[in-house]
Amino acid sequence: MNKQQLLFYILELEGTFVFAMSGATASKQHGLDLFGIIAIAFIVACGGGIIRDVCIGSIPPAGLKNWYYLVTSTVASGITIALYSFIQRLKHPVLFFDAIGLSIFAVTGAQKALLYSQNAEVAILLGTTTAVGGGLLRDVLLKRIPVILRKEIYASAAVVACIIVVLGNHFKWISSGWVSIIAVSTCFLLRILSLRYKWHLNFFFTKKSNH
Amino acid sequence: MNKQQLLFYILELEGTFVFAMSGATASKQHGLDLFGIIAIAFIVACGGGIIRDVCIGSIPPAGLKNWYYLVTSTVASGITIALYSFIQRLKHPVLFFDAIGLSIFAVTGAQKALLYSQNAEVAILLGTTTAVGGGLLRDVLLKRIPVILRKEIYASAAVVACIIVVLGNHFKWISSGWVSIIAVSTCFLLRILSLRYKWHLNFFFTKKSNH
Amino acid sequence: MNKQQLLFYILELEGTFVFAMSGATASKQHGLDLFGIIAIAFIVACGGGIIRDVCIGSIPPAGLKNWYYLVTSTVASGITIALYSFIQRLKHPVLFFDAIGLSIFAVTGAQKALLYSQNAEVAILLGTTTAVGGGLLRDVLLKRIPVILRKEIYASAAVVACIIVVLGNHFKWISSGWVSIIAVSTCFLLRILSLRYKWHLNFFFTKKSNH
Repeated sequence: MNKQQLLFYILELEGTFVFAMSGATASKQHGLDLFGIIAIAFIVACGGGIIRDVCIGSIPPAGLKNWYYLVTSTVASGITIALYSFIQRLKHPVLFFDAIGLSIFAVTGAQKALLYSQNAEVAILLGTTTAVGGGLLRDVLLKRIPVILRKEIYASAAVVACIIVVLGNHFKWISSGWVSIIAVSTCFLLRILSLRYKWHLNFFFTKKSNH
Repeated sequence: MNKQQLLFYILELEGTFVFAMSGATASKQHGLDLFGIIAIAFIVACGGGIIRDVCIGSIPPAGLKNWYYLVTSTVASGITIALYSFIQRLKHPVLFFDAIGLSIFAVTGAQKALLYSQNAEVAILLGTTTAVGGGLLRDVLLKRIPVILRKEIYASAAVVACIIVVLGNHFKWISSGWVSIIAVSTCFLLRILSLRYKWHLNFFFTKKSNH
Repeated sequence: MNKQQLLFYILELEGTFVFAMSGATASKQHGLDLFGIIAIAFIVACGGGIIRDVCIGSIPPAGLKNWYYLVTSTVASGITIALYSFIQRLKHPVLFFDAIGLSIFAVTGAQKALLYSQNAEVAILLGTTTAVGGGLLRDVLLKRIPVILRKEIYASAAVVACIIVVLGNHFKWISSGWVSIIAVSTCFLLRILSLRYKWHLNFFFTKKSNH
């Protein structure tokens, strides 16, 4: 395992950890019991990747097969429960780490889908699914309209990262290591800057929500 | 591609288009942003087929692999957003085109499932899933009790079409082209007549809803 | 088919039947039509197993392929509709049979996942999914926060049964028949005793629900 692989490995565990924390926090807010919290945390962290693996035929899905995903998300649940009142005040750090998770999951998801399917569209759609699928399942299970369908520049940042992965793989201008780094950074910056400057995608129509 | 294949191809794109429009309209009503609208439109149009393909082992699913599904549903989203106030008044035409989509998706879904699994029950269940799965996902994501579980003679019309496909394939009374045409027409007529004459399936019990 | 296989076969049909009844009862409470009731009953009875089969690559899923699951769940729906007012008073017997279904589905699910994947974690996660997945889908489709994420010692009993299956298979202390019997009995007792004595998993934190 070279340095770059090690970095991605660490970042993927970091993404698993942060996504699991977001799932555990939301479950605790909804009054779930211990099993419910651990289950939702695992689903947020691994749900998107499991959908991707089922769709590309990587059976059984990595999220079910590799114990460190389950261990990481369970540890994240434990820490969330233990430090709950502290974590609730952590809005900015959590958004920061969540943006890292989003970027990493989009890029590694798109790369795996490309490897298995050799199809650009599959890579873009399933890379995005890897990044946002878990959060979507969390909101469905907790009876909320999925945040990613309402919050601006979240899934769209993942789509941009996946497109960079596909273009980089197709044109081979630079090494695949650099492609990954550029894709992750772009997604991360788009997400963070959109939070900072309140960018959004509603340039086509004024927002008339019925809520 | 002969004339009949061309007809089915056009009808399938029509079904994709109309289902995507229904998804985009529902998303706009719920105040989703541009990405959310395009995502829900795509899920309504392709979700049922993706579930079918995962269950029969057609990997990666056609809905993710063939770019024209995504393009069709994105164009349908754009048109829905641009002509929103006009489309809201179009109730009857939309129900008409939706009935065509339902019939086509049921028949092509049952045929594909039969081809892969050689199992009549799989064909009936997954043909129906192809036709109604997308709408079901739409309602789950938008936090509604799925309309297809409440509205009468919608999924049941798809079931009838799938049974005709399976019987036609088994007994080979007539060419498979005619089987498709009879199945599509039966589903379409059942659906349209049930709308016109308010047929429903509650002949076993009076409806006592707690809503 | 020897005596033990016959017993498990009967118990699996019993589980299918009881899970379908729970789905049909919930659907009737929510005012669904006949098709909706049969569909939800089938999804509760077979949904967990279908997710398991897709994740281990057993294609097409047993729940879609073997007609007796669909027949059993449809018969259960018919009986539920016919005897609705009687069944609503049956709370204790239903919980008793549901605990049998939970135990059987967890053990047979874990065994099948182990057979296909040869991976202990996959067996535990997918055995539990087999047991609780259908109920989870029911609650999502009927717009409820999944009961299994809130009710104590339900999914956790299934997890314990799956761990016994995996340990029994690994260490081979006793015959696999005895492992199954021990696993099923443990899950069943845990569930029944937790109902009787109101055990729960919230020993880490006092319950502060926002509902």
